[in-house]
Amino acid sequence: MKSSGKQFAVGVDFGGTSVKLALVNAQGKIVARRKFDTAEAAGQAAWLEAVSVCIAQMLKTCGLKKSALAGVGVGVPGFVDFEKGFIHDLTNVPGWTAVKLAALMQKKLGLPAFVDNDANMMALGEIVFGGGKNLQTAVFLTLGTGVGGGIVLDGQVYRGAHSMAGELGHISIERNGLVSPQGRGGLEQYIGNRRIIEHTVRLLKAGHKSVLTKLCGGDYALVTPELIARAAHAGDKFSLEVFDYVADCLATALASVTYLLQPEAFIIGGGVAASGKILFDPLRQHLAARLSPHFAKRIKVLPAKLGNDAGAVGGAALALQAQE
Amino acid sequence: MKSSGKQFAVGVDFGGTSVKLALVNAQGKIVARRKFDTAEAAGQAAWLEAVSVCIAQMLKTCGLKKSALAGVGVGVPGFVDFEKGFIHDLTNVPGWTAVKLAALMQKKLGLPAFVDNDANMMALGEIVFGGGKNLQTAVFLTLGTGVGGGIVLDGQVYRGAHSMAGELGHISIERNGLVSPQGRGGLEQYIGNRRIIEHTVRLLKAGHKSVLTKLCGGDYALVTPELIARAAHAGDKFSLEVFDYVADCLATALASVTYLLQPEAFIIGGGVAASGKILFDPLRQHLAARLSPHFAKRIKVLPAKLGNDAGAVGGAALALQAQE
Repeated sequence: MKSSGKQFAVGVDFGGTSVKLALVNAQGKIVARRKFDTAEAAGQAAWLEAVSVCIAQMLKTCGLKKSALAGVGVGVPGFVDFEKGFIHDLTNVPGWTAVKLAALMQKKLGLPAFVDNDANMMALGEIVFGGGKNLQTAVFLTLGTGVGGGIVLDGQVYRGAHSMAGELGHISIERNGLVSPQGRGGLEQYIGNRRIIEHTVRLLKAGHKSVLTKLCGGDYALVTPELIARAAHAGDKFSLEVFDYVADCLATALASVTYLLQPEAFIIGGGVAASGKILFDPLRQHLAARLSPHFAKRIKVLPAKLGNDAGAVGGAALALQAQE
Repeated sequence: MKSSGKQFAVGVDFGGTSVKLALVNAQGKIVARRKFDTAEAAGQAAWLEAVSVCIAQMLKTCGLKKSALAGVGVGVPGFVDFEKGFIHDLTNVPGWTAVKLAALMQKKLGLPAFVDNDANMMALGEIVFGGGKNLQTAVFLTLGTGVGGGIVLDGQVYRGAHSMAGELGHISIERNGLVSPQGRGGLEQYIGNRRIIEHTVRLLKAGHKSVLTKLCGGDYALVTPELIARAAHAGDKFSLEVFDYVADCLATALASVTYLLQPEAFIIGGGVAASGKILFDPLRQHLAARLSPHFAKRIKVLPAKLGNDAGAVGGAALALQAQE
């Protein structure tokens, strides 16, 4: 971030359960936080009021005036037109269809406001201030229930022709693979949390030996990616193979992205990525094996660093960038 | 192209067999051409001299002075560092390892010179002046012996972190697919010319009925993509199915690119694309089926228009752009 402009901005992570706000400085450090339940501020007016109150409180806590803020960036869980600051629709949050949120915020707060989807905000946060710090061109992935992502080229979020680019979870890894509303063979259909569990339980039921059977007390409904990770860290061969499979599916998609975009690095976050080396070691191996040496030696795979703060930090980064 | 700068530029398509030069105006029209055999000007000095002579001849033909030229753009069949105008290595052209071609040309010709790989030049030519005219963000593919490509974002060639992006032929369409030095399941391993022939002959030998068997007089060595296209155009069901398969392999890769980059359009050229609707119709159908409606309705699949001129026109486009 340039040091000439305003030195603070607010990022808002608008989740289905809670809305998290962070006051962030130009070095990407969170200097104050607030949070409210999404359900407690249902409807646009209540939401805008709650955000306004939280921002005022954070400024007060830090002894700052509103004039110290470059603006506010909001990441939302849904389908957005970034240029227009317009929410088409939010997943799992009713009452937010066709909302000109950026304009509403600008009016309510008297600050420049920006709205983007949450994965793009996380990508920007991680690549400007987190696991990808100092990189210019990188691709972010978050591995959880779904597989989300965002692309940063030359330090800026890349959004494509209609604000919808960066859907890494739908990259096809199998031409004749699993069918979903998004197509066929999409990465998310193989390594989304539920798919990892299904894959694991299917193999266990087929008789594969694993400490997992003991760990879940024979109740396969208790198998989670965290449990598989714990078993893998303890040296369970079967669980390590599950992570090897997840890593290879992911490597297939990342090899395609590398050949297409040649980023400097992939930054990988989310629950499954928190399992650490049992994922990252085989991921780096499979990716290298799936690339020619020219590409393999020039690509890095790095863990995300900001955890649940990535979205709010990214929102602030966007507002800080916009004044440049 | 802006109308303020110089109104002409030279594009050079440096092929393994011949070197084609074109004098191109700011509207992308070729106003003069020259050509020499690559083998007749072996070595850098002879090559530079031949290019210099051709440019002088083209200028004379059109009654133009060198000062009318914005510069010269060269597309080469190999591995290039665009920023440095440096050729690492050329495929099938000996004597061109580690050559600072842009600097050598600038010195020899007294004109701004640019060097990029041929697929990027073709992409720029097609997207600025050809099948993608008036588009800002599009992805070009050429289908031939190999599958090459290039990416244009906001009107500029996108080259990635190390000048190597846009390798669309290596996008994986099968996690456990065909192995090559570039990885596993790469698109080119399925729809490169030789692979299409192998696929077809394998099915014919397995007893599939087709007019192709008659057309090649039972000699499968005579089967080519052109012959299959001819049979398909004549209504041969088997040959139409071959093109349907090629289209589906291609659609798998293009769906991934769409989810990642959301370009406005794909521009598709090369020999196999010249077969027309027997490829483009199933390609558009398979691509739509592999995308969610939001993405499907916003993506176009367009034929390339410049044929063998794309590289030289793209080289000129690059030189015209560079003065802006």
